[in-house]
Amino acid sequence: MVSAKMYELGTKKSTIRTIFEYGRMRAAEVGEENIFDFSLGNPNIPTPNFVRDAAVDILRSYPSADVHGYTVAPGKPSVREAIAESLNRRFDTHFSGKNIFITSGAAAAITICFKALAEPGDEFITFAPYFPEYKVFVESVGAELKVVRPRPQDWQIDFDDFSRKLSPKTKAVIINSPNNPSGAVYSRETLTKLADILKRRFTQYGQRIFLISDEPYRELAYGVEVPWLTKFYFNTLICYSYSKSFSLPGERIGYIVVPNAVDNFNETFGAVAGAARVLTHVNAPSLWQMVIARCAGKAVDVTPYERNGMLLYNGLIDAGFKCVKPQGAFYLFPKALEEDDYAFCERAKKYDLLLVPGADFGAPGYFRAAYCIKTDTIQRSLPLFKKLAAEYRG
Amino acid sequence: MVSAKMYELGTKKSTIRTIFEYGRMRAAEVGEENIFDFSLGNPNIPTPNFVRDAAVDILRSYPSADVHGYTVAPGKPSVREAIAESLNRRFDTHFSGKNIFITSGAAAAITICFKALAEPGDEFITFAPYFPEYKVFVESVGAELKVVRPRPQDWQIDFDDFSRKLSPKTKAVIINSPNNPSGAVYSRETLTKLADILKRRFTQYGQRIFLISDEPYRELAYGVEVPWLTKFYFNTLICYSYSKSFSLPGERIGYIVVPNAVDNFNETFGAVAGAARVLTHVNAPSLWQMVIARCAGKAVDVTPYERNGMLLYNGLIDAGFKCVKPQGAFYLFPKALEEDDYAFCERAKKYDLLLVPGADFGAPGYFRAAYCIKTDTIQRSLPLFKKLAAEYRG
Repeated sequence: MVSAKMYELGTKKSTIRTIFEYGRMRAAEVGEENIFDFSLGNPNIPTPNFVRDAAVDILRSYPSADVHGYTVAPGKPSVREAIAESLNRRFDTHFSGKNIFITSGAAAAITICFKALAEPGDEFITFAPYFPEYKVFVESVGAELKVVRPRPQDWQIDFDDFSRKLSPKTKAVIINSPNNPSGAVYSRETLTKLADILKRRFTQYGQRIFLISDEPYRELAYGVEVPWLTKFYFNTLICYSYSKSFSLPGERIGYIVVPNAVDNFNETFGAVAGAARVLTHVNAPSLWQMVIARCAGKAVDVTPYERNGMLLYNGLIDAGFKCVKPQGAFYLFPKALEEDDYAFCERAKKYDLLLVPGADFGAPGYFRAAYCIKTDTIQRSLPLFKKLAAEYRG
Repeated sequence: MVSAKMYELGTKKSTIRTIFEYGRMRAAEVGEENIFDFSLGNPNIPTPNFVRDAAVDILRSYPSADVHGYTVAPGKPSVREAIAESLNRRFDTHFSGKNIFITSGAAAAITICFKALAEPGDEFITFAPYFPEYKVFVESVGAELKVVRPRPQDWQIDFDDFSRKLSPKTKAVIINSPNNPSGAVYSRETLTKLADILKRRFTQYGQRIFLISDEPYRELAYGVEVPWLTKFYFNTLICYSYSKSFSLPGERIGYIVVPNAVDNFNETFGAVAGAARVLTHVNAPSLWQMVIARCAGKAVDVTPYERNGMLLYNGLIDAGFKCVKPQGAFYLFPKALEEDDYAFCERAKKYDLLLVPGADFGAPGYFRAAYCIKTDTIQRSLPLFKKLAAEYRG
């Protein structure tokens, strides 16, 4: 009676969700403080006061129709301008409001891009480890997701495999840096090489591949540069969300940058608008648009994440784990202590350490630990990771 | 390079939008007060103070993670309960939170239902005059929209044509009462007859047709009952938005009711969740969820709309127009004074009367006048309608 596909997508629980719910159940049994839940990427730094103050002030100062009325689909012109200016200040770019399409968060932003571009038979390429919803979203617009194998020594790009995955059907390449789940940030070297390959594809075959950059973690980087993508490759769409930097994931507010340099700007921007329409993102929530106009580009202190990351990293290395040092986001992606990462994560549950198998992200043999949790919880988890590791040493 | 279909959907301006933009241009030329813009269905009663006060209080009283964190996809359990209870109080129903799926407004709600149900080859039926986005949304999920011809004497249902449009492929019937654009409210008699036909379809052929009720105007009814649909037909999905009742269209907050009695509840609710996922409605904006928990079901004074409606109706009748008396929503749908409603609306522009041709809603020969505007503007427009009518008598 209903769509079998939608039923499957709505009821098959993600591994992350299953682990999280197991954690809630265990917490009820043994107490919250005895559960070490590294499963969820839910920001735990409070929303900055300047964001909440702006929301209160806007609610109190403006006529309600100005705040809560429909906005045009790409967002309020003044908000689009404010976002463009904040990017120009930070990245020495030359965007104007007409390059910005405000969206209900990054999931909407990337899927609007997928839908705007996809035609039957198209292929999209991404790199393992990757956010599993990419597959759901790419397939939902009728295209196919090709996954490039991981490069575990530093989680940069395996260019040999990337070249093999490129085809005349490739419509777009999706990157996510700082990366969920690896915590890696793509270097200038990586991005230059990636851009060179895409440019060559254009000069040699006239194939205009889009680069879609999913970067909700842009500001969450620790001592490394997060290069601005449009400087590397002309045909780039930037997808951003304020979910992580402003700790606003529930409010659904982000944007797409469609640069002038993009292949056929008017067509591309038009298709973005059409995709937002059929995905029924009528407009991004209007109060939060106005808040962003006031707060876009304001600096946020992410040192609590950095401290957590280093604490967990050093603890795991000390316990004998192998792990690439975190550069950004709020995840570590260490090697599991046995080949089967599902079995490893099951075994970790003995100590109430809740970890997500790497296979879920297209990188079996690893696991993800989200460190956007209380520092004290991480501290108290370290002896348990040691015990777990000791079991494997036998 | 981009999807031709998305480009078309994103760039082909709707008639309403074109008229509205023309009005903005004329207002710049001749002054705001000289433009009589009846084109947009944008609520003009201010957002109730209790709604804005609730938002401010929530922003100030709760830890940010409780307000702005991700919620589970169907919405916060406490909010779902509050919505269910408010419905139970008002309509003598027995819903619980598990019957409610909170959405980013009604456009999302109906399209989630379409997507949840549609399989290749399916047909959806609606009734002219109808909200033109229905066609876009139904086609976007791969189904076909069949439109039942209008019944101009009262804008109820033409059951002969409805019976002709029903087929073994009919997956769902979409109704919208109080109606945009006709202002009609379906009577108990109409709904009983509609339900009887659908039930007969079930008992005779085992065909379980869904009734999807799009009812953002539920509270905007003037002296007539808006019957509660699930009392008439078991297989009903109710789609609601707070856009109109609380004047919050920019914030995108509404819900779907999936009653226990619906055909295969678990499958249907699961498919709704899957559809919300692929349409990237991760969760409805979380602050507004909490506001709704406090405000759901609170009475709103809609008498300003009623007064406007009667003022415009009486003025038009007085000028010689033929029009069904408004029962709800904030639209009148009078007969145009010539057969070609586009030509009529063009001619009305001479007096800066901005009206929308009925053909846009599947009912040529009529026009829509949205009266959610200043009473004074309506008052001053009446002599102009008289002049326009005089031209035709002329």
